[in-house]
Amino acid sequence: MRRSIATVCLSGTLEDKLSAAAAAGFDGVEIFENDLLACPLSPEQVAERCAGLGLTVELYQPFRDFEAVPDELHRRNLRRAGHKFELARRLGAGTVLVCSSVAPEAVDDDALAARRLRALAGVAADHGVRVAYEALAWGRFVRTWERSADLVLRADHPALGLCLDSFHVLSVGGDIAGIAEFPAEKLFFLQLADAPHLRMDVLQWSRHHRLFPGQGAFDLVGFTSRVLAAGYQGPLSLEVFNDVFRQAPPGRAAVDAMRSLIVLEEGLVRHDPAAAARRGRAAPPPPAPASAPEGFAFVELAVDAESGTEVARTLAATGFAHIGQHRSKPVQLWQQGDARVVLNATGATRAAIGAFAVETGDPGRSARRATALLAPVLPRTRGAAEADLTSVAAPDGTAVFFCRTGAPDGWLGDFILSGMPEPAGAGVTAIDHLALSQPFDAFDEATLFYRSLFGLEPEHDAELAAPFGLVRSRAVTDPGRRLRLLLDGTVLRRGSWAPAVPDPQHVAFHTDDIFRTAQTLRDRGAPILNVPANYYDDLDARLAPEPALLAALREHDVFYDRDGDAEYFHLCTEILGSRVFFEFVQRSSGYAGYGTANAPVRMAAHRAAHTRRRAARSP
Amino acid sequence: MRRSIATVCLSGTLEDKLSAAAAAGFDGVEIFENDLLACPLSPEQVAERCAGLGLTVELYQPFRDFEAVPDELHRRNLRRAGHKFELARRLGAGTVLVCSSVAPEAVDDDALAARRLRALAGVAADHGVRVAYEALAWGRFVRTWERSADLVLRADHPALGLCLDSFHVLSVGGDIAGIAEFPAEKLFFLQLADAPHLRMDVLQWSRHHRLFPGQGAFDLVGFTSRVLAAGYQGPLSLEVFNDVFRQAPPGRAAVDAMRSLIVLEEGLVRHDPAAAARRGRAAPPPPAPASAPEGFAFVELAVDAESGTEVARTLAATGFAHIGQHRSKPVQLWQQGDARVVLNATGATRAAIGAFAVETGDPGRSARRATALLAPVLPRTRGAAEADLTSVAAPDGTAVFFCRTGAPDGWLGDFILSGMPEPAGAGVTAIDHLALSQPFDAFDEATLFYRSLFGLEPEHDAELAAPFGLVRSRAVTDPGRRLRLLLDGTVLRRGSWAPAVPDPQHVAFHTDDIFRTAQTLRDRGAPILNVPANYYDDLDARLAPEPALLAALREHDVFYDRDGDAEYFHLCTEILGSRVFFEFVQRSSGYAGYGTANAPVRMAAHRAAHTRRRAARSP
Repeated sequence: MRRSIATVCLSGTLEDKLSAAAAAGFDGVEIFENDLLACPLSPEQVAERCAGLGLTVELYQPFRDFEAVPDELHRRNLRRAGHKFELARRLGAGTVLVCSSVAPEAVDDDALAARRLRALAGVAADHGVRVAYEALAWGRFVRTWERSADLVLRADHPALGLCLDSFHVLSVGGDIAGIAEFPAEKLFFLQLADAPHLRMDVLQWSRHHRLFPGQGAFDLVGFTSRVLAAGYQGPLSLEVFNDVFRQAPPGRAAVDAMRSLIVLEEGLVRHDPAAAARRGRAAPPPPAPASAPEGFAFVELAVDAESGTEVARTLAATGFAHIGQHRSKPVQLWQQGDARVVLNATGATRAAIGAFAVETGDPGRSARRATALLAPVLPRTRGAAEADLTSVAAPDGTAVFFCRTGAPDGWLGDFILSGMPEPAGAGVTAIDHLALSQPFDAFDEATLFYRSLFGLEPEHDAELAAPFGLVRSRAVTDPGRRLRLLLDGTVLRRGSWAPAVPDPQHVAFHTDDIFRTAQTLRDRGAPILNVPANYYDDLDARLAPEPALLAALREHDVFYDRDGDAEYFHLCTEILGSRVFFEFVQRSSGYAGYGTANAPVRMAAHRAAHTRRRAARSP
Repeated sequence: MRRSIATVCLSGTLEDKLSAAAAAGFDGVEIFENDLLACPLSPEQVAERCAGLGLTVELYQPFRDFEAVPDELHRRNLRRAGHKFELARRLGAGTVLVCSSVAPEAVDDDALAARRLRALAGVAADHGVRVAYEALAWGRFVRTWERSADLVLRADHPALGLCLDSFHVLSVGGDIAGIAEFPAEKLFFLQLADAPHLRMDVLQWSRHHRLFPGQGAFDLVGFTSRVLAAGYQGPLSLEVFNDVFRQAPPGRAAVDAMRSLIVLEEGLVRHDPAAAARRGRAAPPPPAPASAPEGFAFVELAVDAESGTEVARTLAATGFAHIGQHRSKPVQLWQQGDARVVLNATGATRAAIGAFAVETGDPGRSARRATALLAPVLPRTRGAAEADLTSVAAPDGTAVFFCRTGAPDGWLGDFILSGMPEPAGAGVTAIDHLALSQPFDAFDEATLFYRSLFGLEPEHDAELAAPFGLVRSRAVTDPGRRLRLLLDGTVLRRGSWAPAVPDPQHVAFHTDDIFRTAQTLRDRGAPILNVPANYYDDLDARLAPEPALLAALREHDVFYDRDGDAEYFHLCTEILGSRVFFEFVQRSSGYAGYGTANAPVRMAAHRAAHTRRRAARSP
């Protein structure tokens, strides 16, 4: 299957968009009219540019408001169509998209609409191009794919076919059962877009909130498989109107788009391997399936000298032991239970999550999958005897490693282990989750990236009114809940999370006894985040926990959440360095969330503590 | 009337919000529950902080999901209510807001709901507080103000009254006729919010897109006047949930909010002077009415040496004459027709609109109005014999002056005029409009600012899919169309308008003969922006102008728009310095727009020209 992208998906000038699409590996493009209008290149020069980049021009779009209008307007429409078909010919676009009419002049008359479309196809054929007719979900009369399909069959012209667009069909809950029966020779084009479920006007939803496949809530595999079952031979073409992508760097958005198609194709193979085999060699081989994640091998904090001291002191105060020293670099390994933290002082960062490593049975396969999914491989210097750790860069800049900790040539060999018996810890058993803050314009990209690399699924999605603006929070995890990633980011913000505080990240450690952990932290002088008394008064009013429990929560600055019988306890350190903190969490009765409702209180408390500390430090 | 603001309108911690509200001059606040929960101060300390800032705590909010539930849940609700009423008492909030239930357990039983509300009011009274009951537009059963009013009357308890919220009433097209008849003693609270007309789920609309009065499409004057007619004595209190305001600096948002109330009160006086007089001295005096704007006295471009040379050369090439030199500063005056441009080289800006001056019959009154509307007065150094020009800062940083050019002590006296006869110009007669780009998070604030200062009205509102992201464009103008301001800004963008180009601003000059102007510019070598040939091909297909006209447009790089019989012609220079350009426009048959549909083509052309010039300059 050819892979195509509409230029409207990307930001920039037409030249920017074509370069980005080619660099991401697309085979073709849909050229959006407004992109061409603003381009100083002639249509022939654009065609030449595309050819030079290895791109076919799959479609010119859109032409509108044609069918079922009175004669006088029809004459003007035909003149306009002649201009556009000639332009498409000059561009080398074999097909022109015609959308169902939204014109007030249009009338509800299928016989007339079919006659008009037949006439239009005749004009198109004269120019050597074809018409792909599409029902807009907000068309004046033609709104369903079935009605557009009927008109195409009724008009019965070889230069007229159907364009199916997943958004227009799925947004209105269209019935896709019949698609597979539509005659293949009249199935001219397939546009793909995903979207979140939103309760809003469908036109606005379409124009602003489409997403690449796999980033939203639509069943794109089910939809696409039916179109392929009909015998569709054209490209899988993305047409995504999205306010965020419209202003993102086009090279990066094009890679995100291509990744979404690779993942969709993988889903199609999984959905129906036999059909995929029949489609045969035309389809590129799917990437290696994800090697099941078995948890976090380690999390690496990038620190400088000062923040490194602070983080190390906090690790010690929270029960971690400094068990190893890297053979060649200023890198320390700390451990408690199965939770490992690497402090990397090779850079000048004031404490941030620089990397994490996923424990997996087959690190090589995971790395191959990551590169097949277009994850940028990071360069890495290593000593002669050191492990070959492949890492890739996530959209948020975090480096992701793939490890088998127990392997003979595993990464632990890079460290000189002290061999000292570990001191008594604070009850931490493992890393529960990582919270990675995302730039507001990389949120959907990051979700698809992490999900597709490790085979994770969304577990939870929230939008919070936090003290310094709206915050999105989305968790992704594997079916075994061994790798939990919490992605969060501001929905809209000029500048950082709060005045003078960058978006914080955190590492959450799991404990089986939160109050023991809390007592140990207190005894050892860990910088525990103070929770306001008002929070506990509200807990009392809202959830009425047992008085003894409430008193313990209050005494130990532990946050609390309840979901049915399941309970969640969590406490935080203050922010270490400039943007990272530790959280200690206990889950009971299968609690699956992240205490998200407590996040605004935590944010305000972090801001207050941070401001206090800075004030204490300043001369 | 007291003026109040809900803390939920503002960004930051509760302490930040209270300080901002007090600094902007509010008399009171509604305290939003989540703000209190996240606050380290006890309720008593918050009360003390408010008192110290001169703020009363008008309302504690919200309490939810109370009325018409089964007995067991009712018992739990009463316990919860007891906690919250006690909290309100400690806070010094005399009133607690109770919203109509959205709980799935609620039943459709007004008799039960009234009983429950009566019981609730009894508990409130025991704590010395009152309950203000409000119908949410998305309540499960109680959605209209009429139904909430009926329940209040039916429950009939002195501690139970009605809260009216303009959003909940106006968003669903509620009938406001009966409000004036509601008994004043049971009208406990009035929350005000405006909003744009949006076709979306009302809850999402309410939570994300409310605006301060005067910034949206609701008739707040009509609504508020009816509430006042009923005899309402409480505060006018703003409750605005807005994604942008939620993340804006709270001090600035509070000033914007206060300005909106001043403007609303002015509207109330204009709407019904007799009623306003009856309300009497309690109301602060409204600001002086706007002195009608008579056009632009001048626009001032801030330049440095290099960009100043470029702008001066372009002014000369576009028919302007350098007619004067400032007596004490490196400031030049250029003129053509009634269009005056001041080049101010006292700073280091690489060409931008630094200021503009509004021609008005009574500059002193305009300046007094501006300060009454909380516009920050700018400091200004002036020589002994120089005119006393008051200027204020607009939200986008532009300085706004008020002038009477013909006055004996007018600003022209600050210049030594050359007295030379002006050379033949290029047909420019006046400044047609200024386009001032706004930061994305100051758009609504800027609109209200400019409108309220000069008595302008919105004329046009558009959202464009431009090459580098969505762009909003809103024109405001006086009834005589002598002062046209075009405010534009990106809807969402990390960084500037396009890679490496700051958001451009422009000065549009009016001409009566665009082709004569264009020919003159070309003859004199002005840096005219090239328009792509594809644009004219599309004009031909779309509007089919006469071939001779099309040829002239194409030859002279003139953009074209048509609205019925009205026509608009405009051509642009390239960007001068780093962010400003000139536009030359001709309006025929009363064309009232700005050729907005052409903006994306212009933007791409500007970006291309800018990139080309930078490439040519770099070594």
